Amino acid sequence: MGGKLVECVPNISEGRRAEVISAVVDAVRATEGVRLLNVQSDESHNRSVITFAGPPERAMEAAFALCARAVEVINMNEHRGEHPRLGAVDVVPFVPIANMTMPEAVGLARMLGARLWDALRVPVYFYAEAATRSQRVRLPDIRKGEYEGLKDKMTGPDWAPDVGEARPHPTAGATVVGARRPLIAYNINLHTAAVDVAKQIARAVRESSGGLLNVQAMGVAAATGQAQVSLNLLDHAATPISRVFELVRREAERFGVEVAESEIVGLVPLDAVVDVARHYLRLRGFDREQILEARLME
Amino acid sequence: MGGKLVECVPNISEGRRAEVISAVVDAVRATEGVRLLNVQSDESHNRSVITFAGPPERAMEAAFALCARAVEVINMNEHRGEHPRLGAVDVVPFVPIANMTMPEAVGLARMLGARLWDALRVPVYFYAEAATRSQRVRLPDIRKGEYEGLKDKMTGPDWAPDVGEARPHPTAGATVVGARRPLIAYNINLHTAAVDVAKQIARAVRESSGGLLNVQAMGVAAATGQAQVSLNLLDHAATPISRVFELVRREAERFGVEVAESEIVGLVPLDAVVDVARHYLRLRGFDREQILEARLME
Repeated sequence: MGGKLVECVPNISEGRRAEVISAVVDAVRATEGVRLLNVQSDESHNRSVITFAGPPERAMEAAFALCARAVEVINMNEHRGEHPRLGAVDVVPFVPIANMTMPEAVGLARMLGARLWDALRVPVYFYAEAATRSQRVRLPDIRKGEYEGLKDKMTGPDWAPDVGEARPHPTAGATVVGARRPLIAYNINLHTAAVDVAKQIARAVRESSGGLLNVQAMGVAAATGQAQVSLNLLDHAATPISRVFELVRREAERFGVEVAESEIVGLVPLDAVVDVARHYLRLRGFDREQILEARLME
Repeated sequence: MGGKLVECVPNISEGRRAEVISAVVDAVRATEGVRLLNVQSDESHNRSVITFAGPPERAMEAAFALCARAVEVINMNEHRGEHPRLGAVDVVPFVPIANMTMPEAVGLARMLGARLWDALRVPVYFYAEAATRSQRVRLPDIRKGEYEGLKDKMTGPDWAPDVGEARPHPTAGATVVGARRPLIAYNINLHTAAVDVAKQIARAVRESSGGLLNVQAMGVAAATGQAQVSLNLLDHAATPISRVFELVRREAERFGVEVAESEIVGLVPLDAVVDVARHYLRLRGFDREQILEARLME
């Protein structure tokens, strides 16, 4: 039960001129039914990350309106910045948040891709869960050569776009569209200042060195002076926060170290928090629609 | 941050005639900005419990509209039912859910009380957190004598109403208005069929026999065949779910019994679920506005 909810996080190639950024963001603000959650601009990257959410159809409208505006006001031939990019709208990920499957989010990506070509003549690559082949799953592979190398890359054998003809838009380049899981930035602080302990725990729990799937981790020194295991949880539905917390806690025990506290950085989907309660209280048959505030959102 | 949210749970003295019930409920449906959450009618009680929620001003409007309609369509002189009651609208509790203090909820109760007398000539008693004296905290004390005894009771020395003159409305009697905490119905099932163990645990954890404040508990047999500690949590902010769960778990250990699972029955405020995550993950500085869905409600 409850309404479908999708998050959309377009990255545009403008992080300096406030009037250009707000012209693009206004396209989201003007779309009924979606909520603008965050705008983060980076001057040295010359890039802005815009986060909004809403029901699928509304999020689709807002994403298209944003792209149309960005194509209008951003000229890639004049763009300089440190972050790799392919176009005026560099990447548009759809993130299923509530009552949405990943295939549905992929469907949204496909629809937006078709519209970008049909209405704006911007060629599109699909990435992540929406990728059409394994070489196009990761953004860095698609971005290689950047806007400046796009014309040559597109006409090569392997890089014809997924939608549209094999030539960049003259001022807006190309756009990467896709679907991915929400990412949770999660830090666990230890009752020790020994960063080396945090590094060893990070190695034990992360996917890349034999630990938990969907978990990235490193050991760092926190601002508090404590050693910290700093994590990205890439799929909280498959690998929930509680499992990560408990494994870090167990690994810390090997060093005689206790977990002091943990911290969720930024936004987290309600389901991830509900799963924590479900785990520790051994909840049976709990539905998120039992949460009063979730009922109010239906 | 975030919008104020209050729940309102009026009880009306009609649980049989569907057209009368829906006429009253329609007054809530017609009020913009509030969400009807539940309507539960009991034939033998001849009584309906209506649950809705919204921002304070909107909830106040809906509560008043509901009362006005109920006074219009319910005649207490013709009412029979097993549940004690004083009036067409028997009781109207306001329950602070999010970003609301109890004094704010009491303020709402006071405002509604004044309007019921001014506009409808229904005298009002304040109860629970809104009570004006200790004898009026509990509903059973106020309801004693019921509608039929109201005329004599009101003119006695101790029972002048808190608002209005000391005479019942000729068809609608009197109404009790107040503010209370949300109640969480919570069951914990044990890995044993021994109901006696559940009863002993219930005695250990409940307020009435020296346990946790704000906790009611009894030991019963669950439909699953397991022994169950069945609890009401009367103030989850002061006495959180996690504390109750952990104490039940510890007391069960005395009998060599493990907790099998637990169950939240019906609605629960988001804060109560967030507090569970906060406790077990030792979360530092977590704000409910970090939950994506909560941000969308702002």
